[in-house]
Amino acid sequence: MKIHGRAYRTIWVGGDGWSVDVIDQTKLPFAFVTKRIASVEEAADAIMTMVVRGAPLIGATAAYGVCMALRTDASDEALERAYDLLLKTRPTAINLKWALDEMMAAVRNQPKAARVQVAYARAAKLCDEDVATNEAIGRHGLKLIEAIAAREGRVNVLTHCNAGWLACVDWGTALAPIYMAHDKGIPIHVWVDETRPRNQGGSLTAYELGAHGVKHTILADNAGGHYMQQGEVDMCIVGTDRTTATGDVANKIGTYLKALAARDNNVPFYVALPSSTIDWTISDGVKQIEIEERSGREVTHVTGRSATGEVLTLELTAPGSPARNPGFDVTPARLVTGLITERGVAQASREGLAALFPERAT
Amino acid sequence: MKIHGRAYRTIWVGGDGWSVDVIDQTKLPFAFVTKRIASVEEAADAIMTMVVRGAPLIGATAAYGVCMALRTDASDEALERAYDLLLKTRPTAINLKWALDEMMAAVRNQPKAARVQVAYARAAKLCDEDVATNEAIGRHGLKLIEAIAAREGRVNVLTHCNAGWLACVDWGTALAPIYMAHDKGIPIHVWVDETRPRNQGGSLTAYELGAHGVKHTILADNAGGHYMQQGEVDMCIVGTDRTTATGDVANKIGTYLKALAARDNNVPFYVALPSSTIDWTISDGVKQIEIEERSGREVTHVTGRSATGEVLTLELTAPGSPARNPGFDVTPARLVTGLITERGVAQASREGLAALFPERAT
Repeated sequence: MKIHGRAYRTIWVGGDGWSVDVIDQTKLPFAFVTKRIASVEEAADAIMTMVVRGAPLIGATAAYGVCMALRTDASDEALERAYDLLLKTRPTAINLKWALDEMMAAVRNQPKAARVQVAYARAAKLCDEDVATNEAIGRHGLKLIEAIAAREGRVNVLTHCNAGWLACVDWGTALAPIYMAHDKGIPIHVWVDETRPRNQGGSLTAYELGAHGVKHTILADNAGGHYMQQGEVDMCIVGTDRTTATGDVANKIGTYLKALAARDNNVPFYVALPSSTIDWTISDGVKQIEIEERSGREVTHVTGRSATGEVLTLELTAPGSPARNPGFDVTPARLVTGLITERGVAQASREGLAALFPERAT
Repeated sequence: MKIHGRAYRTIWVGGDGWSVDVIDQTKLPFAFVTKRIASVEEAADAIMTMVVRGAPLIGATAAYGVCMALRTDASDEALERAYDLLLKTRPTAINLKWALDEMMAAVRNQPKAARVQVAYARAAKLCDEDVATNEAIGRHGLKLIEAIAAREGRVNVLTHCNAGWLACVDWGTALAPIYMAHDKGIPIHVWVDETRPRNQGGSLTAYELGAHGVKHTILADNAGGHYMQQGEVDMCIVGTDRTTATGDVANKIGTYLKALAARDNNVPFYVALPSSTIDWTISDGVKQIEIEERSGREVTHVTGRSATGEVLTLELTAPGSPARNPGFDVTPARLVTGLITERGVAQASREGLAALFPERAT
């Protein structure tokens, strides 16, 4: 997608042909800075310090980390060390392990002399596959937006958190259909939930939509229900971290509340996802998906930019009052209008998913 | 209620017998400071700068402002000037006009020599009436809490924004039953919604509950639905700014989302209110209650305390991205389990309210 007219991915091989450049996401939304990663250690560090974030981008960064490790030492031992080092950077990111396993499978049986070249080829393909998946999600979602635009003459979409290209290699999941609609000239406007406590909506989603030129407005998470009641939301599209085989959706905390408001006001509620995030082994999201509990400090303190341009952290709440901070919630399938996957839009049910992914359904 | 063991109201006549002291709420939650108000101009200033806030407390402060104006000059002209000066401090606060009209009615027909004494007596009575109303709300709400405690052995209540004693003279509305339950030794714990964008929950509600010794936990507004799904919320109690004759409830933005989650999880959802906030002239809250739109800067910027103790304001969101900021939303009566008034708990319907307030229903 574009940053003020210039096209970017979130990760790319630099001019030297082997190091990679990434957008330093710790500096967003206040500065657009790229950062060079030139070793497996730097790749691990970029993941740990959240210079890169978002499951697909973490996976891509780790893949290139393996490449750089092999460039220094193409032995089995070095490969294993790189795998272990990268895997432990974000232990809960399901995509990270998948990407590392893909890299391992690609190079393990290669002669040492061929490993570096094979690894770079696999990492590049992994990035291209992510882009192709999201582009397909975008195309399927675009049809839903076009149908509303044909009826209403304009489309107001509400989204929560950041399921945009900054979390992926390009396009994003929930935002892919929005970028396509915008690029086709459909009058589209996005209500961006702030997404407390980490504010990924107000910082990252607003930043990437603004930089690409998509009209949008930031809202406190509390406000979306009111705008739905007032008829100012035509559809919701959100991403997901994990979807059950029955269509229950785990996503950033607060998603469930927006899905309830959407149903109460007959607003369609869509979830955009690569099928790799479907967990075919579970069927009851509320009971079976373990919700990560994060530090209460993310609620009691906040980081932003001062009038003098410094990035500072402030205490917001009554000193001594404890806070709890679940990272995700589960939206039951009954509240989801459809799942926008790379193969098309599925009904959020076992039957709906099985029809699109017969080889995975049991 | 208590601040670390010492009982306070939010406003009281000082040792000199005529000036009033208030808790400077602009300093909360980081410092507990009282402020002396010694003239009508200082009273107006305290209201405008939000040293005092909350409809009942604004009314009480204005009432004492009238007293102090008459102390300097008991003429009709001075009385009118005080009325006008105070009324324009917060033009939308319905209680402010009511309190000023009460003062005017009490002193207007008195001889000049008697006016000051009559005014102080009326202001004191106005404060006592507010306390008595909230105490009655507390007693009726306490029965609901006791019923849950009898069944569950403990009670987890979720509340939104600040409907506590800091907004009133004492007790509060939504928090009155909670203080009574705590003081009776019922094991009660309060989930406190942060309440973006102005954070009245995380700052004021958490502060007053903590200072009185009530167990509580701050949550991002996004998290309440998840805890209801997980069975960790036994009931919700919120306040209201305006309730229709049919039981639709306008309250701080985000209340509607919690009411939806409560219904989806069979959690009782109560609204605590003095009957003075019922608007008997309207019957459709979503269509007829005009929602105040506040500055987007409340969403894009936030105020808190730095590590060095300074109170600073930071920019939070992508620079250049606009924000919208509706101050309230409307929860339809169908989502409200009951309205806790000073006369008892009414069903949220025209019939329910008419049964408790037959003299007002038409």
